[in-house]
Amino acid sequence: MKIAVLPGDGIGPEIVTEAVKVLHALQLPFEMETAPVGGAAYAALGHPLPASTLKLAQDADAILFGAVGDWKYDTLARHLRPEQAILGLRKNLGLFANFRPAVCYPELVSASSLKPELVSGLDILIIRELTGDIYFGQPRGRRIATEGDYAGSEEAFDTMRYSRPEIERIAHVAFQAARKRSKRVTSVDKANVLETFQFWKDIVTEVGLQYPDVALDHMYVDNAAMQLVKAPKKFDVIVTGNMFGDILSDEASMLTGSIGMLPSASLNAAHKGLYEPSHGSAPDIAGQGIANPLATILSAAMMLRFSLNQEAAAQRIEAAVKKVLAQGLRTADIYSEGTTRVSTIDMGNAVVKAM
Amino acid sequence: MKIAVLPGDGIGPEIVTEAVKVLHALQLPFEMETAPVGGAAYAALGHPLPASTLKLAQDADAILFGAVGDWKYDTLARHLRPEQAILGLRKNLGLFANFRPAVCYPELVSASSLKPELVSGLDILIIRELTGDIYFGQPRGRRIATEGDYAGSEEAFDTMRYSRPEIERIAHVAFQAARKRSKRVTSVDKANVLETFQFWKDIVTEVGLQYPDVALDHMYVDNAAMQLVKAPKKFDVIVTGNMFGDILSDEASMLTGSIGMLPSASLNAAHKGLYEPSHGSAPDIAGQGIANPLATILSAAMMLRFSLNQEAAAQRIEAAVKKVLAQGLRTADIYSEGTTRVSTIDMGNAVVKAM
Ligand SMILES: CC(C)[C@H](C(=O)O)[C@@H](O)C(=O)O
Ligand SMILES: CC(C)[C@H](C(=O)O)[C@@H](O)C(=O)O
Repeated sequence: MKIAVLPGDGIGPEIVTEAVKVLHALQLPFEMETAPVGGAAYAALGHPLPASTLKLAQDADAILFGAVGDWKYDTLARHLRPEQAILGLRKNLGLFANFRPAVCYPELVSASSLKPELVSGLDILIIRELTGDIYFGQPRGRRIATEGDYAGSEEAFDTMRYSRPEIERIAHVAFQAARKRSKRVTSVDKANVLETFQFWKDIVTEVGLQYPDVALDHMYVDNAAMQLVKAPKKFDVIVTGNMFGDILSDEASMLTGSIGMLPSASLNAAHKGLYEPSHGSAPDIAGQGIANPLATILSAAMMLRFSLNQEAAAQRIEAAVKKVLAQGLRTADIYSEGTTRVSTIDMGNAVVKAM
Repeated sequence: MKIAVLPGDGIGPEIVTEAVKVLHALQLPFEMETAPVGGAAYAALGHPLPASTLKLAQDADAILFGAVGDWKYDTLARHLRPEQAILGLRKNLGLFANFRPAVCYPELVSASSLKPELVSGLDILIIRELTGDIYFGQPRGRRIATEGDYAGSEEAFDTMRYSRPEIERIAHVAFQAARKRSKRVTSVDKANVLETFQFWKDIVTEVGLQYPDVALDHMYVDNAAMQLVKAPKKFDVIVTGNMFGDILSDEASMLTGSIGMLPSASLNAAHKGLYEPSHGSAPDIAGQGIANPLATILSAAMMLRFSLNQEAAAQRIEAAVKKVLAQGLRTADIYSEGTTRVSTIDMGNAVVKAM
């Protein structure tokens, strides 16, 4: 089992170190190799996704990813910026299915912005399409407008697009995931305005006919953004496109109040995947040893489950994380009175001990 | 002062009736004329925005709009669906500047999903560009893909675009609005992925140089969706494009817990405007006399202020709304124990009385 370890920028290296520690503790025959990515790779090798890093990721069975991005790289040309690494990995490895659970841990309910009764027991799974939509559509760029009200003016443009097979495969992923949960899928679109999402809605409906045991409903993205605030527990599986998924999955994560706990997986058709925390690189707290490594540790558990076929090991890690929470250990981001504040390293060690 | 009154579908007619009642009570020389719009217009005249309705709107100084949409029209061809009316009005009248306040009334703080300390005193103004972006960009449609990974497959596509003058004018609107408030603008983009929004960010930054007294910051849309949940009071004026504005303004409205209270204005360059509640047509409660007319009544106040130059009258209405809330009158959507539940009509009458 070959794992590519890509720590990245900001708090990436600190949190990935703890996840690697936890993986080692399983004493399974992993081969782990580390490579720079994002700003760190630009600094070392002149490109956010160097050929050597991409090759390592391609040859591995799974990728454990930290986070990328730092203000120091904000002035670089776009194609050299850290985010291009994650976009490049998604596209090159065909990682089209992004799983973003938004789960509220019982011990952390009070950390949510929302009233406890609205989030206690919350367990949503957002499935975001990750290699299509306006993220990659061509053409895009700047030009002088030649038609319409603004002919003669400078303009910029992008292309939103989805083809039938792209929508079909993500719909299948969503229906199959719902079968293992409460058998409900909400497909989020903007069919009332966008051709792309009328097509999306039509095809998801079509695929849904193959899953008569799963209830499907459709919701406009603006309404979904509202209903997530109003009554998040009404959702089970949400499936949506790349752009809407970017927005809604972050909104949903934040509802839990503990985004530092939330893992994610991005899978391709062969179940190879990239696993990373839902939160970002947080350059403001990098190097202080206070970041929460649990989202990354739980991402490693997802990796064991989805890409490495090690369900038992995944459950061992998840149980250990629950145990350290029950013990009252908290990093700064989830600390509250009456609990014990610990560092990134101490949290990693506590998980290993709890296993 | 000519006002076009377009009640629309669902609860539209009920709530507009109350707003018209309030306008009459001002005893100002208004000329009001009513026309069908949305599904109601399709049913009566075969089109959601009949030529006669558009003409009335064009000739008026301002438009008081209820809401459009009803499930019964869901199966119509797209160009005949109720929503096309509102898109057509925006485009035809050049209503590019959408003002969407998200304000939390002291009496209604407990109706919010969020903890009281996070929303009490909340007062955000979202300025959404309303005639550009992917809503109107061409080309769009369905076709067989000829290039890329999905050549040969059916696909659907849309074009996101903004020209320099479109971004400049909405940026000026935002900076000028901020000058009357706490002098802070947050521009929301997705410059890390989209050419359109890198251009947006560049131009908003450029325009910002003309407003050295206003602080400008930039935020990615996914982060904005999170920060609205985490700490909404950190925002003052938010300016963004049509698509992101659709999502974020609805999310922000819902944070207040009382979307039934929130008005909106959509203005063109000549300060002519369309005024409508932030909520929708709610066909599920139409005809029951329980809808909250206050958002529409407050939209009429905005109309007096922005399009009809009647600041004093606007303030009279706003003061009357505050008074009925203080009296404990509540429609069903904002009812809580210890207050008095009233009907749509009673609420309208109470506002008139309070004036
Ligand atoms: C960094 C950025 C390109 C990325 C995205 O928009 O997909 C991020 O927000 C995410 O969700 O992983
Ligand atoms: C009805 C729909 C076309 C419209 C939009 O997306 O703009 C609505 O959601 C709004 O925000 O006014």
